[in-house]
Amino acid sequence: MLEKCIGQQRVRRIQRAARQAKITFLCLFMTVVVMRGMLGAGKFGTPAQDLDDLTTHFYAARKHGEPHRVLVEAQPENENGSENDPKNYATFDFNKILKDEGGEEEKPDPNKPYTLGPKISDWDEQRGEWLKRNPNFPNFIRENKPRVLLVTGSSPKPCENPVGDHYLLKSIKNKIDYCRLHGIEIFYNMALLDAEMAGFWAKLPLIRKLLLSHPEVEFLWWMDSDAMFTDMAFELPWERYKDVNLVMHGWNEMVYDQKNWIGLNTGSFLLRNNQWALDLLDAWAPMGPKGKIRDEAGKILTRELKGRPVFEADDQSAMVYLLATQRDTWGNKVYLESGYYLHGYWGILVDKYEEMIENYHPGFGDHRWPLVTHFVGCKPCGKFGDYPVEKCLKQMDRAFNFGDNQVLQIYGFTHKSLASRRVKRVRNETGNPLEAKDDLGLMHPAFKAVKVDDSTM
Amino acid sequence: MLEKCIGQQRVRRIQRAARQAKITFLCLFMTVVVMRGMLGAGKFGTPAQDLDDLTTHFYAARKHGEPHRVLVEAQPENENGSENDPKNYATFDFNKILKDEGGEEEKPDPNKPYTLGPKISDWDEQRGEWLKRNPNFPNFIRENKPRVLLVTGSSPKPCENPVGDHYLLKSIKNKIDYCRLHGIEIFYNMALLDAEMAGFWAKLPLIRKLLLSHPEVEFLWWMDSDAMFTDMAFELPWERYKDVNLVMHGWNEMVYDQKNWIGLNTGSFLLRNNQWALDLLDAWAPMGPKGKIRDEAGKILTRELKGRPVFEADDQSAMVYLLATQRDTWGNKVYLESGYYLHGYWGILVDKYEEMIENYHPGFGDHRWPLVTHFVGCKPCGKFGDYPVEKCLKQMDRAFNFGDNQVLQIYGFTHKSLASRRVKRVRNETGNPLEAKDDLGLMHPAFKAVKVDDSTM
Repeated sequence: MLEKCIGQQRVRRIQRAARQAKITFLCLFMTVVVMRGMLGAGKFGTPAQDLDDLTTHFYAARKHGEPHRVLVEAQPENENGSENDPKNYATFDFNKILKDEGGEEEKPDPNKPYTLGPKISDWDEQRGEWLKRNPNFPNFIRENKPRVLLVTGSSPKPCENPVGDHYLLKSIKNKIDYCRLHGIEIFYNMALLDAEMAGFWAKLPLIRKLLLSHPEVEFLWWMDSDAMFTDMAFELPWERYKDVNLVMHGWNEMVYDQKNWIGLNTGSFLLRNNQWALDLLDAWAPMGPKGKIRDEAGKILTRELKGRPVFEADDQSAMVYLLATQRDTWGNKVYLESGYYLHGYWGILVDKYEEMIENYHPGFGDHRWPLVTHFVGCKPCGKFGDYPVEKCLKQMDRAFNFGDNQVLQIYGFTHKSLASRRVKRVRNETGNPLEAKDDLGLMHPAFKAVKVDDSTM
Repeated sequence: MLEKCIGQQRVRRIQRAARQAKITFLCLFMTVVVMRGMLGAGKFGTPAQDLDDLTTHFYAARKHGEPHRVLVEAQPENENGSENDPKNYATFDFNKILKDEGGEEEKPDPNKPYTLGPKISDWDEQRGEWLKRNPNFPNFIRENKPRVLLVTGSSPKPCENPVGDHYLLKSIKNKIDYCRLHGIEIFYNMALLDAEMAGFWAKLPLIRKLLLSHPEVEFLWWMDSDAMFTDMAFELPWERYKDVNLVMHGWNEMVYDQKNWIGLNTGSFLLRNNQWALDLLDAWAPMGPKGKIRDEAGKILTRELKGRPVFEADDQSAMVYLLATQRDTWGNKVYLESGYYLHGYWGILVDKYEEMIENYHPGFGDHRWPLVTHFVGCKPCGKFGDYPVEKCLKQMDRAFNFGDNQVLQIYGFTHKSLASRRVKRVRNETGNPLEAKDDLGLMHPAFKAVKVDDSTM
């Protein structure tokens, strides 16, 4: 009736304005909720309590040059014909949302479901063939030591907060150090490959592209730019993962029983390069396309997951939901690791560094000496984080120095304090540098030794 | 007589003020001279004309914690007893300068000559023994492929120019990409190891420390933070260097005949890990200690080298002087490379990128497709460069994108233009990613293949 009075287009404009106002209100509300959530972080009583970053880490939305969608059949409806049943992720038809909303003025074509790329079903075979033909690019560096590619990145634009780029620089130096010590290669991304998957979802097209381009890579290790290595001596327990394909920090109970939105963390995870990974990415992606799909999916996630504030769908919540609703499909190849800090929420770690130095040593990777300290919510690159910016920056400096000290000690130096950029000498130069004490075994770490054979150069 | 009238201390204060005024005037003069020099860059008629950075690239001066000098005999005077003969670097007694100036209020003790560390004379033996005992850390990755460590760095402080850290970030990503493709490891330094050797001299203590800590490294490749890789496909001609220990971009005539201060460039060079390198570092270092020594040495260099403006001693001028005055000692192990741009002065390259794309392809490394574009004088991190800042930043973006395109094309993308951060797809996704055209051979470059042997994992 309203339409008849004021015209169809005006009604749509009013509806759109109302939605935008609602989103603005929800964002404000979300900020308050997160702050409350942060203050109550100790509620669960576990040593690892995470709060994830709730807004776009990395990329501003950009227009995409060429359409890349291909026509792919949506997942079949389940037998009782219940479309868009939130209990069944696989039948969720995000397409329907776009059609219902009459999205003809949006790009791209709503009649084409989003896809990360052409469906590939024989990747294990393709990859296996390639590895056979290319023995000089082995997927294992040594027995029990897979070839790993650590993937991270940030926006190609300068940070809105001028000091943000300095922290990105320190963060990548920190990763360079860990990876050099552990024989891991790095890919630093600054390109938005798919405008629809901007923000935290940008990692999905990137990961797929890298897996398919690098069959020699056995494990891809995604790591957020706001996560830092704080245990330079800890080597991942690769043997533990020989039968799994996805490793994330988290807890089974919190994901499968509680569907808690922070039951796992996608800021630092391992993904094996195989068909299963491609299938997982395809199953994970549908909630990602920005705009209506991501918004509506966000509402579902807030409703279905425990403790989740209201905001657009993020990759982490989507992963919790995917695993919790399709445990039979994925669960046996997913390892939720809580034995060490593959991801460590900074809030419960950074005040303890001095205590750790007093009582422990590098190599534990866990609460005694965390492998990773992850500054979720700090957002040093943007203008507004979830925490006071000074506190974040100060703690990021401390975490950086905590890790850096472990590198400097190889060379006989250390930071004057965890707060200081300056270094001091702690071991005199000698005429026999190769006899220097190498307490942590990091000067020539076993992790990166090559296999010794009898052939000569 | 003046001293009797107004007292010895006042005389010294007046002298010091006069020296400071003189230095200020000289700095202003130097800026003018550099600008004139830059405008006249085409004078020599060679395709590679460099102007080097004239002020401190990297580190602000910091106080040093512990003294590390050891008492070392100054070089013996030559036979005719001419002390401080500028024609003979080896007899230059920098100590004398400090004594003459009555530097008792300066630190450190002027009675102790500066040294990079305890003299080591058997490094070849120590290193050789270590390599024998550690065959799992070979100094050659493959036949003709030495293990290389690329060393670079920047200040631990945020840049004074807010956008400077963003360019440091892009620069290290650029290096990460080249090194990943070429099987080279990276060390990113942010620590000032020796306060006396601040600024451009800071690389010397760092290089020595890394050589001695990493006997497995065959070549150390120093690269300035303002230098970027612009040819991702070019592999250094290692065979060419099998009998030399130091490789720098430069020209024999300009160094040995003209003693031109820009006859070589120390912003990107290779140094083999052996006794010769330690001896060279020891011979190179004496002009470096900041304060009077560096100032006075600067005057000598200005007087002795062609075209050098007046400013404190820099490592590059000192190298020219060292080689020109001691060719017999060092020359046979130094390769001044002008066959490709191990260092390429940005001023003559950046306007030609479109022409290069039109006419050539990656892999040449030379004027057709420069390996390195080096933004000498731009100083994006500081407040004042030698060139207009907007011009520098714009060209640094172009150089970055020029190099980045070569990485992106592996994955089927490219920048929308050399000025644009945005990327576009240039190759469709397929179901057979391993059959994708890899024009530059960078997807699985031969440079990083491991040696194939018969042993099984």
